[in-house]
Amino acid sequence: MLTSIDTPAVIVDLDVAERNIARFQDHCTRHGLGLRPHIKTHKLPQLAARQMTAGAVGITCQKIGEAEVMAQAGMTDIFITYNIVGEAKMARLRRLARGCRLSVVADNDAVVIGLSSGFADEPRPLEVLIECDTGAGRCGVQTPGEALALARTIAAGPGLRFGGLMTYRPSGDQAEVDRWLIEAREALRGEGLACPRISTGGSPNMWHCQTVTAATEHRAGVYVYNDRMQLRAGACTVEDCALSVLATVVSRPTATRAVLDAGSKVLTSDQFGLDGFGLVADHPEARVAGLSEEHGVLDLSATSWRPQVGDRVRVIPNHACVVSNMVDSVWAVRGTDVEGALPVAARGCVA
Amino acid sequence: MLTSIDTPAVIVDLDVAERNIARFQDHCTRHGLGLRPHIKTHKLPQLAARQMTAGAVGITCQKIGEAEVMAQAGMTDIFITYNIVGEAKMARLRRLARGCRLSVVADNDAVVIGLSSGFADEPRPLEVLIECDTGAGRCGVQTPGEALALARTIAAGPGLRFGGLMTYRPSGDQAEVDRWLIEAREALRGEGLACPRISTGGSPNMWHCQTVTAATEHRAGVYVYNDRMQLRAGACTVEDCALSVLATVVSRPTATRAVLDAGSKVLTSDQFGLDGFGLVADHPEARVAGLSEEHGVLDLSATSWRPQVGDRVRVIPNHACVVSNMVDSVWAVRGTDVEGALPVAARGCVA
Repeated sequence: MLTSIDTPAVIVDLDVAERNIARFQDHCTRHGLGLRPHIKTHKLPQLAARQMTAGAVGITCQKIGEAEVMAQAGMTDIFITYNIVGEAKMARLRRLARGCRLSVVADNDAVVIGLSSGFADEPRPLEVLIECDTGAGRCGVQTPGEALALARTIAAGPGLRFGGLMTYRPSGDQAEVDRWLIEAREALRGEGLACPRISTGGSPNMWHCQTVTAATEHRAGVYVYNDRMQLRAGACTVEDCALSVLATVVSRPTATRAVLDAGSKVLTSDQFGLDGFGLVADHPEARVAGLSEEHGVLDLSATSWRPQVGDRVRVIPNHACVVSNMVDSVWAVRGTDVEGALPVAARGCVA
Repeated sequence: MLTSIDTPAVIVDLDVAERNIARFQDHCTRHGLGLRPHIKTHKLPQLAARQMTAGAVGITCQKIGEAEVMAQAGMTDIFITYNIVGEAKMARLRRLARGCRLSVVADNDAVVIGLSSGFADEPRPLEVLIECDTGAGRCGVQTPGEALALARTIAAGPGLRFGGLMTYRPSGDQAEVDRWLIEAREALRGEGLACPRISTGGSPNMWHCQTVTAATEHRAGVYVYNDRMQLRAGACTVEDCALSVLATVVSRPTATRAVLDAGSKVLTSDQFGLDGFGLVADHPEARVAGLSEEHGVLDLSATSWRPQVGDRVRVIPNHACVVSNMVDSVWAVRGTDVEGALPVAARGCVA
């Protein structure tokens, strides 16, 4: 029973997570797209295995540390969507590549040169895709022309094999992203450089991923749990939110203020323009108005709900991925039945 | 050497931290105030011990889990500034109280009743202070009259001993806070209820803590490391910032954009009205414009600095406490000499 769990605690409803996994896998399969789930959301080998069994083509990790945990747990096809820099990381990357099908990205010559010198003497070449900035404004080459130039460097690099193109969250005009990728793909083909993989990413846009026709695979993370950002994007309903924070009311200083025992150390300060820091599942009018590290302040002005000290609530966070990373273990439940605690095996893998 | 540390990494300069500890201890001692450092900032038994050796009267923890780690490490006087609710936590609290001088707070009857029933059969009464809301708008009784009523309940509660008053971060008008506390103290005295301790808190206001004349002790956390919030408050200089995040430039997508390998999983999204998400120590004009979980995007528009992929930077975070909580260990350094990794023993203790 949920009442046996002390608070604050992160709860994952496996029934909901499994339904989310099946539904989006079905979507990708119907559209002929590979699904390559980003494990940064759950960081759990158990759910990665479930995603693979459901039909995923492989998994995505952001950092080598995450990939190491997942390879150890038996994952055999891992894509690290990150520029890997430095000899310490190169040694870890070589060990990883000996045990699974590994691919990485690069968006600049310095990274490609580092990867090439790291893998020149390895028995198998490392698969390198080019990260493309199709509007997200983070990493990535800026034009199809830059992609072509970098692909030449990769193709000529000892120890490397050119794998294709990768972009993150083309959340604006999907048609524009498609044109960008097609232009790059055709330019590459013109020089005899095939693009076996074109990998797109993002969860808010997940139900439209097939509109980027150039894509061969899509990476999504949050879809397994969903959260308030997914709700805002219209990508899920409250019933599809598998992860929530169980919290206890510890103070009722005024008629319209309640204080929860969960603050930014569980819910995090991620806000992304949303109002407040979470959604109280059964009392959506109660605003999670402020967080300090261990306190969540609820403003009850807009609700007639008047909780007592000791009452428990479930809060759907703004951003599920970062909440998983705050705790050593999450509680796996199915409805009100508690299955047990799952160690968040890839928590805190920042390097 | 710092170059031997892979990134991203959290670096703590012990020379600076020890200077910060000594300086604020000296301030409190000169003003006849006890200093009770909040260990939530460092979560390290080693620095808590250092604070005690320097003259602290005890330590402050926010959660039982933190107190358990610190008691295990030999701390003998622990104040948990939190409303403790529920039988699971009460059992842990009893175990703690048998091994050290323990005090807690309460701001409502339900918490006091729970503490009393939990400690009624214990050999030693539990010391309970009343949390007062003197303007922070979080927990706390709202008026001196409410404090008096709750003090009566504590004094009458089997297993409990009334310990005094506690407030957090009276950052506005210190004189107003002082009047609040004096009024409550005098009302309590009028009923024969002595206030052996009146405990104030906060780091931005730390150099003015003596202006709340009613206080007998002050709790501060961030002062040991300092951060961008402390800089904004004028409570420290850049040279007093002991904690920083060592990061590597992994991408230079445009002339004015650089991307670091440290994102919100290290620096956190805490912003508190500050511009950006950190201060690049040697390039303050480089704006830490955006974070995603594993990327920090620098806007170089306002600086002529043009870093290369592979270059390293140190970033002073907006809020040091939450950064300590993101990593399993921090690197203890003295200048450019690395002493070793310190496990963040009380990391992730949310309950």
